[in-house]
Amino acid sequence: MTEERELTLEEQLAALEAERDEHLNDLKRVAAEFENYRKRVLRDQESLVARAHERLVKELLPVLDDLERALDYASKHEEAKLEEGVALVHRSLADLLAREGLVEVETNGKFDPHTQEALLSQPSDQEEGAVIQVVQKGYKLGDRVLRPARVVISQGSDG
Amino acid sequence: MTEERELTLEEQLAALEAERDEHLNDLKRVAAEFENYRKRVLRDQESLVARAHERLVKELLPVLDDLERALDYASKHEEAKLEEGVALVHRSLADLLAREGLVEVETNGKFDPHTQEALLSQPSDQEEGAVIQVVQKGYKLGDRVLRPARVVISQGSDG
Repeated sequence: MTEERELTLEEQLAALEAERDEHLNDLKRVAAEFENYRKRVLRDQESLVARAHERLVKELLPVLDDLERALDYASKHEEAKLEEGVALVHRSLADLLAREGLVEVETNGKFDPHTQEALLSQPSDQEEGAVIQVVQKGYKLGDRVLRPARVVISQGSDG
Repeated sequence: MTEERELTLEEQLAALEAERDEHLNDLKRVAAEFENYRKRVLRDQESLVARAHERLVKELLPVLDDLERALDYASKHEEAKLEEGVALVHRSLADLLAREGLVEVETNGKFDPHTQEALLSQPSDQEEGAVIQVVQKGYKLGDRVLRPARVVISQGSDG
């Protein structure tokens, strides 16, 4: 019955108007949410970086403390304590960096151009292309090479 | 003339339909942009923190190198070089942290509960409430106190 009859033009107009207004309201609402989100993201990003940094700097404070204690032993020429102190500082910094994901670049075996830099090659009784000396350790953080290992490689025995 | 005449209902319907469709299209476009932005932000935040971290970890590598050199002197009991080495490591770590914005908490003068923690108070010839000893240095990063200075304060001479 009523469901079957055609809408009058006036009724169609009213329905369309309602639809148009609804879309317009939704558009305004989504645009406002987007804008607020954008502003919040900018604020968050700054504080995210600041907080990430802050945490790491804070973890370095005990290393700095241990180092100052070692410095104090050095100034008093208390050598045994100084040696212990340096070992302690080294362990705490190395542990901290390992917790951050730092790992040493492998240097056992053949030269790897992705993680190593060859400073020079020398004749040696090792196989050609083998790493024969590490001049400076290399480090990776996750997949990224922060610093390649600087190495000397073998030219082979007939180099 | 034509401008003055009323639109027919059919014309009004067509105009409304066009408006409704335009709003709906805008709505879909803005919603899609919003969604893409949200996804990008999530990706960016991860890499932002990772990169901020990476830079700082990378700057710590020379400190670790110097420390290993000092450790090497320690194992060989080359005391003069060890002492120099420790001084060098300390300077490079302290400089790095200063560049990051780290500053020591002031401890000259009266006790400041915002940046200091009083471990105990002792009778002394200094004015009541004056800091008379720093047990552990405090540090600030920008406005934030990373660690309060741990101090002993004066009870005054009649304490």
